[in-house]
Amino acid sequence: MKSIKVGLIGFGTIGSGVVKILQDNQNIIKDRLGASVDVIKIADLDITTDRGVNVKPGILTTDADEVLDHPEVDVVIELIGGYEPARSFILKAIKNKKHIVTANKALLAKHGEEVFTAAGKNNVGIGFEASVGGAIPIIRSIKEAFVANRIQAIEGIMNGTANYILSKMSDGDHDFDTVLKEAQDKGYAEADPTFDIEGIDSAHKIAVLTRLAYGTPVNFDDIYVQGISGISTLDIKCAHEFGYRIKLLAISKFDGKAIDVRVHPAMIPEDKPMANVNGVLNAIMVCDDLMEENILVGHGAGSLPTGSAVVADVVEIARNMISGAQDRVPSQSFQESNVQSIPLKDMSEIEGEYFLRFWVQDKPGVLSHISGILGNHDISIESVIQRIKDDNGQGVPLVMMTHDAREKNIQAALKEINAMEEVSEQTVLIRVEK
Amino acid sequence: MKSIKVGLIGFGTIGSGVVKILQDNQNIIKDRLGASVDVIKIADLDITTDRGVNVKPGILTTDADEVLDHPEVDVVIELIGGYEPARSFILKAIKNKKHIVTANKALLAKHGEEVFTAAGKNNVGIGFEASVGGAIPIIRSIKEAFVANRIQAIEGIMNGTANYILSKMSDGDHDFDTVLKEAQDKGYAEADPTFDIEGIDSAHKIAVLTRLAYGTPVNFDDIYVQGISGISTLDIKCAHEFGYRIKLLAISKFDGKAIDVRVHPAMIPEDKPMANVNGVLNAIMVCDDLMEENILVGHGAGSLPTGSAVVADVVEIARNMISGAQDRVPSQSFQESNVQSIPLKDMSEIEGEYFLRFWVQDKPGVLSHISGILGNHDISIESVIQRIKDDNGQGVPLVMMTHDAREKNIQAALKEINAMEEVSEQTVLIRVEK
Repeated sequence: MKSIKVGLIGFGTIGSGVVKILQDNQNIIKDRLGASVDVIKIADLDITTDRGVNVKPGILTTDADEVLDHPEVDVVIELIGGYEPARSFILKAIKNKKHIVTANKALLAKHGEEVFTAAGKNNVGIGFEASVGGAIPIIRSIKEAFVANRIQAIEGIMNGTANYILSKMSDGDHDFDTVLKEAQDKGYAEADPTFDIEGIDSAHKIAVLTRLAYGTPVNFDDIYVQGISGISTLDIKCAHEFGYRIKLLAISKFDGKAIDVRVHPAMIPEDKPMANVNGVLNAIMVCDDLMEENILVGHGAGSLPTGSAVVADVVEIARNMISGAQDRVPSQSFQESNVQSIPLKDMSEIEGEYFLRFWVQDKPGVLSHISGILGNHDISIESVIQRIKDDNGQGVPLVMMTHDAREKNIQAALKEINAMEEVSEQTVLIRVEK
Repeated sequence: MKSIKVGLIGFGTIGSGVVKILQDNQNIIKDRLGASVDVIKIADLDITTDRGVNVKPGILTTDADEVLDHPEVDVVIELIGGYEPARSFILKAIKNKKHIVTANKALLAKHGEEVFTAAGKNNVGIGFEASVGGAIPIIRSIKEAFVANRIQAIEGIMNGTANYILSKMSDGDHDFDTVLKEAQDKGYAEADPTFDIEGIDSAHKIAVLTRLAYGTPVNFDDIYVQGISGISTLDIKCAHEFGYRIKLLAISKFDGKAIDVRVHPAMIPEDKPMANVNGVLNAIMVCDDLMEENILVGHGAGSLPTGSAVVADVVEIARNMISGAQDRVPSQSFQESNVQSIPLKDMSEIEGEYFLRFWVQDKPGVLSHISGILGNHDISIESVIQRIKDDNGQGVPLVMMTHDAREKNIQAALKEINAMEEVSEQTVLIRVEK
C-alpha cells in the first residue's frame, strides 16, 4: 500500500490532534483513501511536553529545517500560526516542492498573494480548510460545490470564543468581563483574548473567504473591524425585546462592482437558524444567484475538529498525488490569470437598519430632540423602547431601531447627539443583519 | 480553451435549470475551471414545451440513444428520475465510457450496487451530489471533508415538501390537508405527494448517505419509514407546550456493530438550530468522533439549487479529465474492496424518549390505568399534560413524554392501551430526537 509522508511543524493543540487522528483513525483513512498517511517528522520548539500521543523516537526535532529539507516528506503541515517564521517556513517548503497544509488564517489574510503565487509557480498544492471554521467544510464548498454560482454574500459567526461569550451573556445576566474570565478558565479563550474578542481573527477569516468567493486579493488593513468588548448585558436584553440576538458577524458582500467587507457585532432575527448557533459553534452562510442560501454550522476550533480538517486536506493532496492529478482545483478558487482586484466599498456607504442605545437624562423633550437630529440626517425611526428601567444615576437608556439608513448619516447624527448636554454616555450602535 | 461536452437526458425542472446555469454563468465557470462546459445534446420525450431557455436548433431529440451513443459526449447527465428507463440509460452510458452525473436518489437507493460497480469497472466517474439535499454539499463533504472521521450518525430534514407542510402547520393553526393543498397550489408539492409526505423520498436519501458514511450496501426495503400524514395540529401544539418542534427526520446511526436507519416524524428541542430550519429548507447533521456535529442547511430542491449541484459535479469530472486524474475519489466514499455489509438494527431494539398522545374518555382512573400499563412495560413517564381542551365529543387528549424507553416495550404497551375501553382512538406516537 502506498504511503504519503507528512512532516509537521507545530506540535501544539491542533498539531497533536492531527497526530492523534492519523494514529487512531488510520484504518478508516486507509479504507477510504487506499493509502496510508504517515507522519515522519515533527518540529516544535518544545519537544518535551507530553501531548497525550505516542510518537516514534527520533521523529521529534526542534529544527524546522529537518522537516522542510527532508527528502521523503511529501506534505508539510504548518501549524505554528502567525506571520513569521510561518511565512518563511511555508515559502521554503514550497521551494522544496513540498505540498502545504496550513491552518494559518493570519498569514493567508496578510500574505496570501505571495504564498499562493509561490505555490502556483512551484506546482504544489496548498490546503487551508482548517484556517476558517475548523471542521466546517466552507473552503472546499466555495471552491468545488459552489463553483457554478455567483456568490453575492458570505456572512458568518467565525469565532467560537466571541460566540461563547455572547451566548453566555444572552443566557444569563452575566456581564462581559465575568463571562470572559469564565471562558479563559475553561480554555475557550486565550490569556490574551484580543484577536478573538476584538474581531481580528474573524477579519482574517473573512479576508480568506473573500478572496475565494470573488477571485480578488484583499488588503487586510482596509477591512472595518469592531469587536464585542463594548456589548453590555443591557444591549442583549434590548435586542431580545426587539426579537433579535447579538452575534459577532464577519460579512463580505459583492454587488458586482465593489465588495463590502466588515466584522462587527450585529443583530439577527431570533427565528433565523444562525441566531440559534450558540456556544463555541461557528456558522457560515453563503448566498448566491442559484441556491439563495446555504448555511454550514459546526465546531470552529479545537484539537480534533480543526485537526480533522487538516487531515482531510492532506488526504486531498494524497489523492491528487496517487491519481496523477496536476493543478486540479486552483488554490484561490479562480484560475490565477482570472484573479482581479475588486475595490472595497467604503464603510460610510453601507446601508441597513440600526439599533441605537442612548443614555439620556430622564426629562421631557430629550426624545424629541434626538429624533429631530436623526430626521435631519434622513434617518427614520422604526420603534422606540423607553420602558427599560436601568437608571445608573446618570440617566436612563433610550433604545431605538431605525429603518434603512446610511452609515454616513448615522455617524454624523450620532456625533451631534453625543454632543447633547442631556446625553451622558457615548451612544451604542449595533447594525442589524436580516 | 478546452471544452467539456455534456449530453443531458431529462429536460424538466432541474434539466432546464442546468442548461440555464451553463448559459448564464458560463463566464464564472470558465474563470474557475479554466475550460468551458457545453451541452451538445438534450433528450426528452417532450421537446416542444418552452423551458424558458434557448437551445441551439438540432440539440433537442426524443431519442436518448442520441445522447448515450454520441461520440463527443464526455458526461451524461441523467435527470429523468425513477428506476426505469433511468437505470438502463445510465448503464448504457457507463458501457460507452461516459462519465455520469445524476440526481436520481431512488435509483441509487435501490440499484446503487449495480450502478457503482459498473462505473468502477468502466473507469468512469459518477457524480450524485444533487440526489440528496439539492444545493447542500453533503455528499462531497462526507466523501472528502469528513474522510478522516468515524461517522456515528447522520440526521436530517431531507424533504422540503414535508418540511414546508410541518412548518406551515406550526406557524398557523392550519391542518394537514389545508396546507398540503396550498403547497400543491404553490408548486411545492406534487399532484401525487405520496413519496414526499410518506417519507419514501427521505428514505431514498438516507439510504444513499448511509452507504457513503459507513461503506455498506443498504437494502432499501429494510428501512423503517413513517410519513407525516398522521400528524395533527394538536400534536404540533402539544410539541410546542413541551418545548419541541416536529420535523420529518431521516436518521442513520452506527454504533460500530449495526446501523439504525429510519425515517419518521420526530420532536426536536426548539432551541436547536435544526428546529428552526423551516419552509422548504433542508438540513443535514453529521456526527462523528472528531468534530461532534456539523450541520448543513440549504435549499433541498428546485431548478437552480439542484441544478447548481449537478453543474458542480460536471465541473468535478471536468477537473479530473483535464488534470489527468484517474480514480481520485471512490464513488462509494470507501475503496470498493472495503465496502462491507453491515447489518441493520431492528426497529424494535431502538431506544429513546417518546411523545404519546392518547384520546381518552374524560373520567377518573384513566390516567392511572394507562400509566399502570406503561409501568408494566418498563416505561416511565417524564411529564403529562391534561390541560389541553380539545374535546371532540369522543374524549379529550392526554399527552405524555416518557423517559428513555425501548420501542419494543412502547409498541407492546400501546397495543394494550389502544384496546382499553376508555381509549377512543389509536394513540399517536412521536419519537424524540435530542
